[in-house]
Amino acid sequence: MGLVDIQNSQDTRQVELEQVGVRDLSYPITVLDQHSGSQHTIGQLSLSVHLPEEFKGTHMSRFIEILHSNRGDFTMLTMPNILKELRERLSAKSARIDLRFPYFMERKAPASGQSALLDYQCAFIAQSDGTELDFTMQVTVPVTTLCPCSKAISDYGAHNQRGYLTIELQPSLDDSGKPHMIWIEELVEVAESSASAPVYPLLKRIDERHVTMQAYDNPVFVEDIVRNVAVKLRVDGRVKKFTVECVNHESIHNHSAYARTSWTRGGVPLLTEEKALVEA
Amino acid sequence: MGLVDIQNSQDTRQVELEQVGVRDLSYPITVLDQHSGSQHTIGQLSLSVHLPEEFKGTHMSRFIEILHSNRGDFTMLTMPNILKELRERLSAKSARIDLRFPYFMERKAPASGQSALLDYQCAFIAQSDGTELDFTMQVTVPVTTLCPCSKAISDYGAHNQRGYLTIELQPSLDDSGKPHMIWIEELVEVAESSASAPVYPLLKRIDERHVTMQAYDNPVFVEDIVRNVAVKLRVDGRVKKFTVECVNHESIHNHSAYARTSWTRGGVPLLTEEKALVEA
Amino acid sequence: MGLVDIQNSQDTRQVELEQVGVRDLSYPITVLDQHSGSQHTIGQLSLSVHLPEEFKGTHMSRFIEILHSNRGDFTMLTMPNILKELRERLSAKSARIDLRFPYFMERKAPASGQSALLDYQCAFIAQSDGTELDFTMQVTVPVTTLCPCSKAISDYGAHNQRGYLTIELQPSLDDSGKPHMIWIEELVEVAESSASAPVYPLLKRIDERHVTMQAYDNPVFVEDIVRNVAVKLRVDGRVKKFTVECVNHESIHNHSAYARTSWTRGGVPLLTEEKALVEA
Amino acid sequence: MGLVDIQNSQDTRQVELEQVGVRDLSYPITVLDQHSGSQHTIGQLSLSVHLPEEFKGTHMSRFIEILHSNRGDFTMLTMPNILKELRERLSAKSARIDLRFPYFMERKAPASGQSALLDYQCAFIAQSDGTELDFTMQVTVPVTTLCPCSKAISDYGAHNQRGYLTIELQPSLDDSGKPHMIWIEELVEVAESSASAPVYPLLKRIDERHVTMQAYDNPVFVEDIVRNVAVKLRVDGRVKKFTVECVNHESIHNHSAYARTSWTRGGVPLLTEEKALVEA
Repeated sequence: MGLVDIQNSQDTRQVELEQVGVRDLSYPITVLDQHSGSQHTIGQLSLSVHLPEEFKGTHMSRFIEILHSNRGDFTMLTMPNILKELRERLSAKSARIDLRFPYFMERKAPASGQSALLDYQCAFIAQSDGTELDFTMQVTVPVTTLCPCSKAISDYGAHNQRGYLTIELQPSLDDSGKPHMIWIEELVEVAESSASAPVYPLLKRIDERHVTMQAYDNPVFVEDIVRNVAVKLRVDGRVKKFTVECVNHESIHNHSAYARTSWTRGGVPLLTEEKALVEA
Repeated sequence: MGLVDIQNSQDTRQVELEQVGVRDLSYPITVLDQHSGSQHTIGQLSLSVHLPEEFKGTHMSRFIEILHSNRGDFTMLTMPNILKELRERLSAKSARIDLRFPYFMERKAPASGQSALLDYQCAFIAQSDGTELDFTMQVTVPVTTLCPCSKAISDYGAHNQRGYLTIELQPSLDDSGKPHMIWIEELVEVAESSASAPVYPLLKRIDERHVTMQAYDNPVFVEDIVRNVAVKLRVDGRVKKFTVECVNHESIHNHSAYARTSWTRGGVPLLTEEKALVEA
Repeated sequence: MGLVDIQNSQDTRQVELEQVGVRDLSYPITVLDQHSGSQHTIGQLSLSVHLPEEFKGTHMSRFIEILHSNRGDFTMLTMPNILKELRERLSAKSARIDLRFPYFMERKAPASGQSALLDYQCAFIAQSDGTELDFTMQVTVPVTTLCPCSKAISDYGAHNQRGYLTIELQPSLDDSGKPHMIWIEELVEVAESSASAPVYPLLKRIDERHVTMQAYDNPVFVEDIVRNVAVKLRVDGRVKKFTVECVNHESIHNHSAYARTSWTRGGVPLLTEEKALVEA
Repeated sequence: MGLVDIQNSQDTRQVELEQVGVRDLSYPITVLDQHSGSQHTIGQLSLSVHLPEEFKGTHMSRFIEILHSNRGDFTMLTMPNILKELRERLSAKSARIDLRFPYFMERKAPASGQSALLDYQCAFIAQSDGTELDFTMQVTVPVTTLCPCSKAISDYGAHNQRGYLTIELQPSLDDSGKPHMIWIEELVEVAESSASAPVYPLLKRIDERHVTMQAYDNPVFVEDIVRNVAVKLRVDGRVKKFTVECVNHESIHNHSAYARTSWTRGGVPLLTEEKALVEA
């Protein structure tokens, strides 16, 4: 093939690019599932590499080749290997993957025990320069929130609504230098136990009675939910740093109320890519 | 200008096109406001014409010329004139405008009387073939809905949430053959009085107490709201036909409940474009 | 359980509801795949039934029960059975399913032969009153479109862009009274052969040269693509009626150009639900 | 009114919240316009304050009161005053405003001189703790990009598409300690001159010929556009730091290509709120 490779030519503008790559890519992927081992879902992906100032362009088609050959597996365990492959195939000093996907869990109604699936929006974001590796996971959990002020000042009733609680965290390292495993299922449990009541896919009347009274018994402000989650994550040694945000779609307004907090554990070691790579 | 006009060339595939035009156009517009005369807002527009089977293409730039010269005014009164201009400039037998825009109304809190603005998503859709003219208006009103089942089966509390009620209607004609004027403000009032409580932009504590108890006192299913609206619109002689839909963002689920009904008044005369045109 | 069933109570407003149900439901589903038999994907679902004027409400939880028990299979073949189940469990005279999902196909680059997956947005909409059954399928295909006017009036080059072509159709019936099978793969082929060039997930330089020149050799207006598709669908006896729409994200504007045509074959028999049901 | 103020009660969880407030607020606003003085548009707003660990909640209604009373004016000049008002009314040590809005500019076609309006998505983000003030502005400019590789390896033609270039920057301070004024119009000019060709709202055939050939004469990779912008912003002393990102909606793929770079000027003084406040 004698086609000229313009991307490979010299650049003199002295502007290095932190990220060059592809985005808005929809792809079937497999992620780990605490109960059934693995789950088929569909990812929205961005893949990028660093581009030094002396090169005119990157080779975009290689991102798709690597994505296609690795689509069987996108997990905290395999992403370091994919990052390494991106860096090597694209001769880059660092690489980055941003993956968003819906994750489904079977949820049992609290009184009838009937079950169906509920969807949670998740993200894995991983970046590595060959030495240090950043891995961030994110889970958004729908919850019921009932307003403590509305309950306290009214003779009866209390406004409540769907809220979306997002936990974004980086795991800390275990004794072998690898990141602690934290399951999506665990973060869903932390989120739901911090709200007025969980949200369910399927509720019979006996369940609806249960969650109505559960929410009324557990009023929380958007500030409270975020703090409840923060308190639980701080005492979990597997968590290195986190941001927690909740957005309540207020039933009495046409806007949302929200709260946000961040936290970083003191004195934690960094993850090296060497430790994170999975042996072939 | 000697550039070839390919659009004007002959087509032999024998496929006429109902709509050819531009869409995803964002443009500042002015609409009628019942209280202040007119309101500046931003429209999302689609403009199209019919294309007969013998012509290869239409002239897309003319849509923008007509939009730009008319942007001062998009109302039930001026849209027939714009449709006529589209038909004439594009030599088409029919033309269509689809306009979506947010509309703002100042709303007073029920107890404190404090006011702020609330946004309502609206649409005007107009189509004319030079004889008959269809004009449809649509308003989406956020409301509070409190579940009658949850209230009845629980010892205390009741789940409630934000719902979005959409009224789409065609006005009937007055004695002079012109469509009756129906204000966005009137449809907002119909929608809010059919729900558990209105949604407000600004509520102080005394107001929050008011709407909390108002909603608890007026539980409605999504089915009820739609029926309440239908009953009110049927007795309004200015309404020729309507579709009413409500979508409740259930606070206990991660999905929505919805209901929809349609109705057409018997034996109503059609609107002719001749009657609808505004005299220069 | 002695909880009151408010939904079952009498309603006197004399407003029947065409659709009552659930929407904005995200669920893993399986659809037919021409090459591999079946494909896992994620559906966005609306499920509804008709509600007669004398009943106050429907039982929303039953929709989820039926969805959950049928999630293994959403196809032209199984949807009549799900509709029947909805009608029976909800004592309704008609039922409706609206399913939207991304569908993935492996596509080979035209010169290098390298392959990866491309996503197509699809929909199945089915409605039945127990006698007549409507089944509509919809596929949106991304394509490259190159402007014939730009090419003709310029000394070199021609503006081109991504367009989205949507085919919505109802299949006609075969001799046994069942709807003809039409594959998503077939509609993708019809769409791509009507545009300037297909869109690919993965192109090496030799492929990029190929599609660049292919598009330049095959300029089409948005009007042309729609007509090209219409001509092909009319001669396919398996098609009873269709709407074809194309939206071009113009590379020289910040808005889109679009065209739309509809067609219905004369004298075709209706699908009866009896014929469509799959034997247990 | 003796209603209990729960928000004011003590909190013992020891979790301070960086941001507590309202979001998803749609509001009519006025922004500065370089040519006509000011422009009416519609903002999407988030308003928040810091909440110390010892307070249970903030008073959400006050955000709306302040927004409503200030809606006449949201500019680089007035935002420090609104931040101060938020801090004072909500007894908070810091406040934050995130405002997104479409901005319209009249653009003349390059050959015919005909003009119409084009929309640019913009944002102003301002945060202050009473001493230091951060002000960030963001403009997204649609542009035409033509691929240098496609042009070089093909005998004729070249794929091109709409790209969206986003400039996010913080202005540096002038001699009086106030931030330099940078107009949206200036950033649009920087963006368009870095691409293959500008995007226009209205092009006659003579203009279409012009931009088709202009783009073919100026091929740029997504990497090039970002670098071209970076080079221009670095030499502009009014710019303290910036991030530039471009996303190309590739006409030959169903995904996007993107590039991103960031830069901070060395040794620049910080903006104090005292300097930024507008005298009454």
